[in-house]
Amino acid sequence: MDDSGKESKFTAVNELAKRRGFFWNSYEIYGGAGGFVTYGPLGTRLKQNIENKLRELFVKQTGIFEMESSAITPGKVFEASGHVDHFKEPMVECVKCNKRFRADHLLEEYAKISSTEAEKMSLNEIHEALEKNGVTCPDCGGTFNAPQQFLTMFVTTIGPYAGATGYGRPEAAQGIFVEFNRLYAMAREKLPFGVIQIGHALRNEISPRQGLIRLREFTIADLEFFFDPEEPQCHLLRQVENETLRILLAENRLKDSEETVELTVKDAVAKRIIRAEWQAFFMAMAKKLLTELGVPAEKQRFIEKLPWEKAHYSSQSFDQEVYVDRWGWVEVSGHAYRTDYDLTCHMKASGADMRVYKEYATPVEKEQLAVKPVMAKLGPAFKKEAGKVAELLSKADPEEVAASLKKNGHYTVGNYRVLPEHVDISLQKTVVRGSRFVPHVVEPSFGSDRLFYVALEYAYRVKDGRVLLSFPRDIAPVQVGVYPLMSKDGLADKANEVRKLLAESGLMVEFDEAGSIGRRYARADEAGIPLGITIDYETLSDGTVTIRDRDSWQQVRSPIKDLPELLHKYFQGKLDFEDLGTLLRV
Amino acid sequence: MDDSGKESKFTAVNELAKRRGFFWNSYEIYGGAGGFVTYGPLGTRLKQNIENKLRELFVKQTGIFEMESSAITPGKVFEASGHVDHFKEPMVECVKCNKRFRADHLLEEYAKISSTEAEKMSLNEIHEALEKNGVTCPDCGGTFNAPQQFLTMFVTTIGPYAGATGYGRPEAAQGIFVEFNRLYAMAREKLPFGVIQIGHALRNEISPRQGLIRLREFTIADLEFFFDPEEPQCHLLRQVENETLRILLAENRLKDSEETVELTVKDAVAKRIIRAEWQAFFMAMAKKLLTELGVPAEKQRFIEKLPWEKAHYSSQSFDQEVYVDRWGWVEVSGHAYRTDYDLTCHMKASGADMRVYKEYATPVEKEQLAVKPVMAKLGPAFKKEAGKVAELLSKADPEEVAASLKKNGHYTVGNYRVLPEHVDISLQKTVVRGSRFVPHVVEPSFGSDRLFYVALEYAYRVKDGRVLLSFPRDIAPVQVGVYPLMSKDGLADKANEVRKLLAESGLMVEFDEAGSIGRRYARADEAGIPLGITIDYETLSDGTVTIRDRDSWQQVRSPIKDLPELLHKYFQGKLDFEDLGTLLRV
Repeated sequence: MDDSGKESKFTAVNELAKRRGFFWNSYEIYGGAGGFVTYGPLGTRLKQNIENKLRELFVKQTGIFEMESSAITPGKVFEASGHVDHFKEPMVECVKCNKRFRADHLLEEYAKISSTEAEKMSLNEIHEALEKNGVTCPDCGGTFNAPQQFLTMFVTTIGPYAGATGYGRPEAAQGIFVEFNRLYAMAREKLPFGVIQIGHALRNEISPRQGLIRLREFTIADLEFFFDPEEPQCHLLRQVENETLRILLAENRLKDSEETVELTVKDAVAKRIIRAEWQAFFMAMAKKLLTELGVPAEKQRFIEKLPWEKAHYSSQSFDQEVYVDRWGWVEVSGHAYRTDYDLTCHMKASGADMRVYKEYATPVEKEQLAVKPVMAKLGPAFKKEAGKVAELLSKADPEEVAASLKKNGHYTVGNYRVLPEHVDISLQKTVVRGSRFVPHVVEPSFGSDRLFYVALEYAYRVKDGRVLLSFPRDIAPVQVGVYPLMSKDGLADKANEVRKLLAESGLMVEFDEAGSIGRRYARADEAGIPLGITIDYETLSDGTVTIRDRDSWQQVRSPIKDLPELLHKYFQGKLDFEDLGTLLRV
Repeated sequence: MDDSGKESKFTAVNELAKRRGFFWNSYEIYGGAGGFVTYGPLGTRLKQNIENKLRELFVKQTGIFEMESSAITPGKVFEASGHVDHFKEPMVECVKCNKRFRADHLLEEYAKISSTEAEKMSLNEIHEALEKNGVTCPDCGGTFNAPQQFLTMFVTTIGPYAGATGYGRPEAAQGIFVEFNRLYAMAREKLPFGVIQIGHALRNEISPRQGLIRLREFTIADLEFFFDPEEPQCHLLRQVENETLRILLAENRLKDSEETVELTVKDAVAKRIIRAEWQAFFMAMAKKLLTELGVPAEKQRFIEKLPWEKAHYSSQSFDQEVYVDRWGWVEVSGHAYRTDYDLTCHMKASGADMRVYKEYATPVEKEQLAVKPVMAKLGPAFKKEAGKVAELLSKADPEEVAASLKKNGHYTVGNYRVLPEHVDISLQKTVVRGSRFVPHVVEPSFGSDRLFYVALEYAYRVKDGRVLLSFPRDIAPVQVGVYPLMSKDGLADKANEVRKLLAESGLMVEFDEAGSIGRRYARADEAGIPLGITIDYETLSDGTVTIRDRDSWQQVRSPIKDLPELLHKYFQGKLDFEDLGTLLRV
């Protein structure tokens, strides 16, 4: 369990996670079920703290709405969104043992064909590549049948009627798009505004084998930000404009280069490297988030997606990646410029009007052709039918009528042949006060379980042969440990008082009186508890306790009565450890 | 929109909920999907506040673990738990229009047969009752075919193999039970301990039509509390022993009486009305929760479930009910004494040992029969086979051997006939230091959406013809509204400063500068914002603001610099509104 080998850190983190109850593979007693994990007590809190950090950044600080909808979704929604057609992966089956695999993953693993390349291939090309590279079943060595597309959404039936197909949502985004009109009303019909949804999502992976990185049920945080494409300026950009972003550009990736450029948000926007200002803003926020989760800037990057890698709805996409020990660069968030794709799809499929009205600053005068029937000529020409012809003409497109008369010398409407003399065509002025349009969307989308994993891996440290989880103090699952030096002589009672005092002040506290104080410190370090408070004999006489720092193992001494305020300021980042009391020489 | 008619309050609450974005029926643009709701910005926060209150009561104050697992669950789990066999409802289909209905609901609605009666009926009895009472299709008047059982779990397939059935979990409890061994390790192998899981759950209702009360996807909070049935004492009972509970006993329900008894927790336990102490504790906590959500005690009760109403796993069950305007008494939480049912089921189905070891305070000496082969007799009788016979005898149950010899004069083991002379049977003393047993479980289970609904309905008030949502201050979705009296003269800038000050102190703040101050107050009251802060011309000269109370409409005046501390104390319940400043005559 050290930092040397690639395998060992991943294994050590997972072993620790399982032993201490951060997370483990679910349903072990039934032989396990690939792609499902259970978060234990420490993990559940860590995950909630990470999700609350997303809320802090986006809901509280940026004023974005939060909403919640269902994971099971009527079929129509994902038919309209394009998922039923596109949310598929190539799958092969071993002809010998009938085991099924994701074909592109086999190519990556056994034929060293990059995912970039594999994603571009047709089913036939995949088949050829598998054969050419002699890729066989990893389990039994058998050959594969022809690849087919596998829909990676969970399918179910809603209610008692066989036809009512429902899908498990692979993203929370559609739950937002379909409710756009209501959400827009709640934004008092003003753009821009954003809506985030953090919730479980489902992808029926073919053969998930990467722990928290590839799950069948996971937590997604989709943020859909709606804006007027004619007013794409981000008024919050200034807050982050000097933040730097490391980007692996599509043009470099096409040249098989891993070279990144590092540039400020301001420059990335000015050079049109990131096309939508709001997208640049959210990418900067995503970097801030990962940094606050404990991932150093040099272990983060954005990669621009290649045309064939982008989701079907995206005009420009970046993945935010973090370097992890076992898997290399792994996506933790996706940043897609979804344009008006989704709202337009749902408008078409549902018939609902999801356009918003924009009043022009000054009304625009427009000249438009108008076609006016000349009844004096129509009457003699069409007799009883003249009224009907006039009506049909009023509904016709004036541009079309004029063009046809000019080109053909007549215009056919219904069964009637209209001649130039039957109509007056003139330019008329109209005042247009505004227009309707479909808002554009940029979407940052975070995988909560992946954020969790990278936070855990980057917290993992070995010090003097012992394991610490050095979580940033504001995401630690337990904030304070309280330890009586001994269980006897009233020390445990005193410690319980301190525990209660701190818990009632709102801190997440754990009481531990089992084993030597050294063992308890070790246990606490491994659980990532930033501060430990020890109640000793001195406490009984002068009301002071020692506070111990998880990372430096330094200790300070402070009065109990000051603890609530001191600790709250410490966890708000307003005080450093050294400010908590008088430093002790240990 | 007043309090007079039954229909009107329910309608008014739902209309307000939709208009202000608390919740609405999902997927309206596609014609809606029964049983799915979307929580908008205000609703999402209210729901989170309610769920955080559950965490506060149970996780923070009671030290119960929280965990998180998946909604999609391998089939084996719900086969073992009995759900695949039992989680069904009687369904009928109209022979004319083919519409399907829940048969017991039809009997309740159209034949005035109580749910208590209907739940007891067999499919045949339901069929007869429908015919006898002339119940026909509510949509087209057609007759029904014979009722059948409909499995109300969502069914899907996990992964690419057709046989791998998965279910949407109808309860979060099983996700806890299957992980018992890991969770017990995290409790340092000590009973009692509890685990709560708050998450989405799924029930494929036949025809849900009761808004938030009956959903296909909902949020459940299942708390499984594990204890030693030989040590069933609840050490926390004293905290709540004088709390009173109103209970409608099973014996009264059997007599068709609605009469409740009101007794203290202490008495309910002493009189064995509630059999498990821990169950009594959680029922008291559930009452506390509902009271803190704003439901008066007289609108709450517990009903004891009748034998045929209880879930298949429960030994004694109570439902906590709240009286709501439209539906009468509605269950908001269930309290089941699940005994060792679930763990035993999973032990049998999985082969995993989920028993815990208990060391006796003092080792127990037990006398046990022992069978010792007498080789001197076995040898001549069985020759070469004598050793084998001796081995088989050593594995046999001594009680069984002795009984057979006594009754039949011989004991058959394998193909060998053993006679009394072949064995020595004697009583031997052994020291037993402990035993293994399956822990018992009591379960409080809350429906988060129903808690949400009752909190909303009980917050709903009409004052001077205007609607207020008088949420208890600690669950209000927005805590403080900030309003510049005018947008001009620097008032808006000053108000923005105040907004920022309060938001950064951790309060949930909303800024509103649209329309007259009266309209903004009205909007805020309707959203249930407890305090409104108005920045006026006086603010610019002396740095004070008015604070307005949502419920009394009273106003006080206070300095801006005191606001963060004052308001935090107010929301912690340490200060009343009158303590926030100098009362103004309005």
